[in-house]
Amino acid sequence: MPFLSFDDLDRSEEIPGYLGAFVHGENMTVTNWSVEAGAEFPEHEHPHEQISIVVEGEFELTLGGETDVLRPGRIAVIPPETPHSGRARTECEIIDVFSPVREDYQ
Amino acid sequence: MPFLSFDDLDRSEEIPGYLGAFVHGENMTVTNWSVEAGAEFPEHEHPHEQISIVVEGEFELTLGGETDVLRPGRIAVIPPETPHSGRARTECEIIDVFSPVREDYQ
Repeated sequence: MPFLSFDDLDRSEEIPGYLGAFVHGENMTVTNWSVEAGAEFPEHEHPHEQISIVVEGEFELTLGGETDVLRPGRIAVIPPETPHSGRARTECEIIDVFSPVREDYQ
Repeated sequence: MPFLSFDDLDRSEEIPGYLGAFVHGENMTVTNWSVEAGAEFPEHEHPHEQISIVVEGEFELTLGGETDVLRPGRIAVIPPETPHSGRARTECEIIDVFSPVREDYQ
């Protein structure tokens, strides 16, 4: 399964408004999120480093007391154990990459 | 530096036709490549796991004897120590994520 289309993967609604598809490698997990406009992601943290890439739309991310708006071309690098939360300003497509693997998403 | 715009980063031409911007976290390196149409990436391998995401354009990737065309929505998960090569069918924007950090790109 080295090549994957997000559209072929099953999705689950982990949080209201966030439909996620998950791919697990050896050291990383990739998620593709289809997000409804206005959907909020409550503050949380995890031991995994996370990179958030907005492919479409605008996503407001709060991290370490700083709020920024991610759009295509602007990413966030979220260190391990760092509280973060978010809100979709518009309908969004987001790719998150985590390391190590998110065993809680398996 | 949790929030970054690829357009603000310095780029270097690691391979002819591949202008790369690099961001290093604790466990992962993210690269954003602007690729010229037709540019070839010779076969190589590395101990890092790699996830390749084509944001714009079409990129032909060969991995473990299998060739596939990546487009937005279709990704590759390249295991460590696996020979791979590529060719841009069109002008492309590609995001690669590696784990662990690519110290050779630092």
